Amino acid sequence: MQYIIIGAVAGGASTAARLRRMDEHASIILFEKGDYVSYANCGLPYYIGDVITDRNKLFVQTAAAFKSRFAIDVRVRTEVTAIDPVAQTVTATNLFTGEAYTERYDKLVLSPGAEPIRPPLPGIGHKGIFTLRNVADTDVIKSYVQHFPGGKAVIIGAGFIGLEMAENLAHLGMEVSVVEMSSQVMAPLDFPMAALVQQHLRSKGVQLFLNSTVTGFEPKGGDRLNVILKGGQDLPADVVILSIGVRPDTWLAKGAGLTLGKAGGIFVNQHLQTSHPNIYAVGDAIEFANPISGNSMPTFLAGPANKQGRICANNIVLGNVQSYEGSINTAIVKIFDFTVGTAGMASKHLKAAGIEHHVSTTYSGSHAGYYPGASMMTIQLAFAPGTGRLLGAQVVGQEGADKRLDLLSSIIKKGGTIYDLTEIEHAYAPPFSSAKDPVNIAGFAAENILLNRIKTFDWDNAALESGDSLILDVRTPAEYNAGCIKGAVNIPLDDLRQRLQDIPKEAPVYVYCQIGLRGYMASRILLQNGFANVYNLSGGYRLWKASTSEQERTVDQENLQLVD
Amino acid sequence: MQYIIIGAVAGGASTAARLRRMDEHASIILFEKGDYVSYANCGLPYYIGDVITDRNKLFVQTAAAFKSRFAIDVRVRTEVTAIDPVAQTVTATNLFTGEAYTERYDKLVLSPGAEPIRPPLPGIGHKGIFTLRNVADTDVIKSYVQHFPGGKAVIIGAGFIGLEMAENLAHLGMEVSVVEMSSQVMAPLDFPMAALVQQHLRSKGVQLFLNSTVTGFEPKGGDRLNVILKGGQDLPADVVILSIGVRPDTWLAKGAGLTLGKAGGIFVNQHLQTSHPNIYAVGDAIEFANPISGNSMPTFLAGPANKQGRICANNIVLGNVQSYEGSINTAIVKIFDFTVGTAGMASKHLKAAGIEHHVSTTYSGSHAGYYPGASMMTIQLAFAPGTGRLLGAQVVGQEGADKRLDLLSSIIKKGGTIYDLTEIEHAYAPPFSSAKDPVNIAGFAAENILLNRIKTFDWDNAALESGDSLILDVRTPAEYNAGCIKGAVNIPLDDLRQRLQDIPKEAPVYVYCQIGLRGYMASRILLQNGFANVYNLSGGYRLWKASTSEQERTVDQENLQLVD
Repeated sequence: MQYIIIGAVAGGASTAARLRRMDEHASIILFEKGDYVSYANCGLPYYIGDVITDRNKLFVQTAAAFKSRFAIDVRVRTEVTAIDPVAQTVTATNLFTGEAYTERYDKLVLSPGAEPIRPPLPGIGHKGIFTLRNVADTDVIKSYVQHFPGGKAVIIGAGFIGLEMAENLAHLGMEVSVVEMSSQVMAPLDFPMAALVQQHLRSKGVQLFLNSTVTGFEPKGGDRLNVILKGGQDLPADVVILSIGVRPDTWLAKGAGLTLGKAGGIFVNQHLQTSHPNIYAVGDAIEFANPISGNSMPTFLAGPANKQGRICANNIVLGNVQSYEGSINTAIVKIFDFTVGTAGMASKHLKAAGIEHHVSTTYSGSHAGYYPGASMMTIQLAFAPGTGRLLGAQVVGQEGADKRLDLLSSIIKKGGTIYDLTEIEHAYAPPFSSAKDPVNIAGFAAENILLNRIKTFDWDNAALESGDSLILDVRTPAEYNAGCIKGAVNIPLDDLRQRLQDIPKEAPVYVYCQIGLRGYMASRILLQNGFANVYNLSGGYRLWKASTSEQERTVDQENLQLVD
Repeated sequence: MQYIIIGAVAGGASTAARLRRMDEHASIILFEKGDYVSYANCGLPYYIGDVITDRNKLFVQTAAAFKSRFAIDVRVRTEVTAIDPVAQTVTATNLFTGEAYTERYDKLVLSPGAEPIRPPLPGIGHKGIFTLRNVADTDVIKSYVQHFPGGKAVIIGAGFIGLEMAENLAHLGMEVSVVEMSSQVMAPLDFPMAALVQQHLRSKGVQLFLNSTVTGFEPKGGDRLNVILKGGQDLPADVVILSIGVRPDTWLAKGAGLTLGKAGGIFVNQHLQTSHPNIYAVGDAIEFANPISGNSMPTFLAGPANKQGRICANNIVLGNVQSYEGSINTAIVKIFDFTVGTAGMASKHLKAAGIEHHVSTTYSGSHAGYYPGASMMTIQLAFAPGTGRLLGAQVVGQEGADKRLDLLSSIIKKGGTIYDLTEIEHAYAPPFSSAKDPVNIAGFAAENILLNRIKTFDWDNAALESGDSLILDVRTPAEYNAGCIKGAVNIPLDDLRQRLQDIPKEAPVYVYCQIGLRGYMASRILLQNGFANVYNLSGGYRLWKASTSEQERTVDQENLQLVD
């Protein structure tokens, strides 16, 4: 048996190591066009930002270790340029010597990854404009930014990598701006959650240019350049990081005549087998049915790639014994002091896909409030009416936000419901949680919505503007006076039972408090006292304030750009 | 409708608040014999230890807030002394005035909790001997220990509360000893995991007296006393904390003629209803079938109590609509720098219950090793042969150990398998995890055992002593020379393929490395090269060393005591 793997990072490296453990006697060749195997892809921004200071730490395995430990024939700086699926050969070129040769395979695994998108904008060739994919890019960016201490960095694209780069360049002391075409950072988040992240980024001195399109780049004096935005505004920059997205690297697969999917990735079946039975594929280059929407899509994440590697190797050696379940795109990112994560589908994407759902937002402490060091986190759930199946979860917080996201992700992945959240038996002691964990509370709140014990409304509900409805603020007078929704009447929760006669029974009542809990209690009191149309503000005044402020800011900026 | 709840902490307080949200118009009376409602039971040791400095923080809700917000008639310092299930009345005594009176109920909820066991040993009445159950105990202990700065504390009982008290008294600068009857700390852990905890406790200066029985107490000079151990050893103490366990507080239930269960707790059905249909019960005082063993047992944990409160209230108002699922006893404790937790059943308890199972131990980083601040954690799983159903999980680590325990607990609770662990799609970015999370790795390792790809052996396997088997150390010579298992032969993993002829084919081979990973790889190489009986040491040399050292220490101590 001879196995050939193309691509030695994440999925490819995992497949190779697992193949060896499953088949001690096979010949295994691992081709990698770059200099390094199995490096810490996800660590690259942190090495640029001097958070990781030792470059050697980026290398999880060396080619030498792969040979001595796994008896795998690793060939770095060797690019596979063609596959002949009929002859079962690959053509490889040694990039040191230029020598080209063929190798025969019994089974072939493709793990070519994804490549950053670099749009053909005027001036894109400027030497200060970078994309970040691999160690070579990293070395170049790291050495380049060192010439601009305290200089200006412009990040184009406010996705995960873009925001990690924003944090890391800020960590180096640079002045960082982020330009994003859409109206919010982090596309997988719904707007209110993104608004929280945007406020945090601004508080850390990062300038955000949302709804902003880059039309080109212009050299300025010295090494400087201007990033030109649609509308005419110029952003001066010493360094530009392009992080507008990646796409599956499929040219080799295409050349071999393998089937591509609708989303442009390599098609694979549930065994990770391509359209040719002797060729498997894993990682960022493949597409697979999303377990929630059913739509085929690529997943650009290291976790799924590594797990696919193991499944792929088992299937090759044992004969398609294992099925890949698809990824719900569980992803997380540290953004300065915040932890921001998502699993499953956002409400906006569910809407776009025509999938009916409820949304529930809760705000809870990372651990018992009486024990030092607790921080608050916002959890947003999307779930199906009727069954309560959990469809999506978003978390913005600090300590322990990752823990709750993992729990939510595991429920979504198993097709579980919001009832499962109410039953999670979390580990509780004061340093770690509360007697009711944030995921329990999220489940309780969702259950109340699902079982129609409460109705909610969102920050952008038209009723808040219409003037026809009663807007009821149940916070304390001090909270109310410090800022409220325009037109709101203040009746503190603890006075509500005594003041029911002050509330007209006919009109709908839109209740809110600071985070949603008192609003929920007030709603229960009103509903049980004959008020039929009572709605509680999802996420409370806090989330409303963040969302409306961020919306206004963005609109102002747009107008500014139009005026320019 | 009139609802009466007896006991205003955890389960009782939860039930009361939920009853109000579900039934705005009922009359609700909440009796509490102590001074406080809904206080932070689990925070008490930390207030004694000055980790929580503000006493007010211990009170989650005040009686006044319960009245104003929930319109609940809270009666503190009022003890219910009798229940008449036929008349549907309770007799209550106001402990301020001594006045006794009856109140009628439609539905009654018992949440009396559990009481610390105080054995009738000679000298137990000494004023320096305390148990810790409530705020009153806390105030007394806190003021008492302040008289002994740098003094000696003896904790009797090495369970969760005992070890929390050990840490907190050490935090106050006291010299702490812990006396425990059994051979290890923390009964829910298996011995090797407990050994890791014991080593950590010793490294923090806590003296452990295991296999040690207290026979009595003797006053010494001043306020001092001696704790007398069986065998004659005396431990001088300024303060003694008795934490040998608690038992359900059932005298009121017994008096009312309610059925008790086999384990001595109040019997309830799946709706949390006692043997009398108008009386429900929640919290530490009830017993319920363990979902894994099927045996009825009490659960002394705040999380389940709070969740029961919500279910109980729903069932009372809506008519037994919800079932309680039972608790898998998920519990966690901070022990100095360690986080130690458990869910489901330990291997020793599975053995005792005659439940067949495999055990697998892994050791992984809390997050990517290349990103600063990662720490290592040990995960031990117990799972069923055949199905792979997860039966128990134990975690000893630091950062993120709680996260993994929560994931494992949620799988156990749902009756999930070790395959579920391999598929968990955790949130990965370098500060939070690795591409393969510790729970994935635990699942992979368990799968290898379940599917017979590897066999393991434990630290106390007789073969290590017998001399008939080959013990193969596959670590580096440097690791081997720094300490190895007696009689082991050293062939480093990377040399193994070249030195297969040095290993006799007939004898069983007992392989080990430092943590188990290289041993696994070596086992795979040997098994595929015709060695039929190959076993890998579970947890590696590291866990073997901790287990054997702790065993020797305890035996030495026992001998010492016998000699004394």
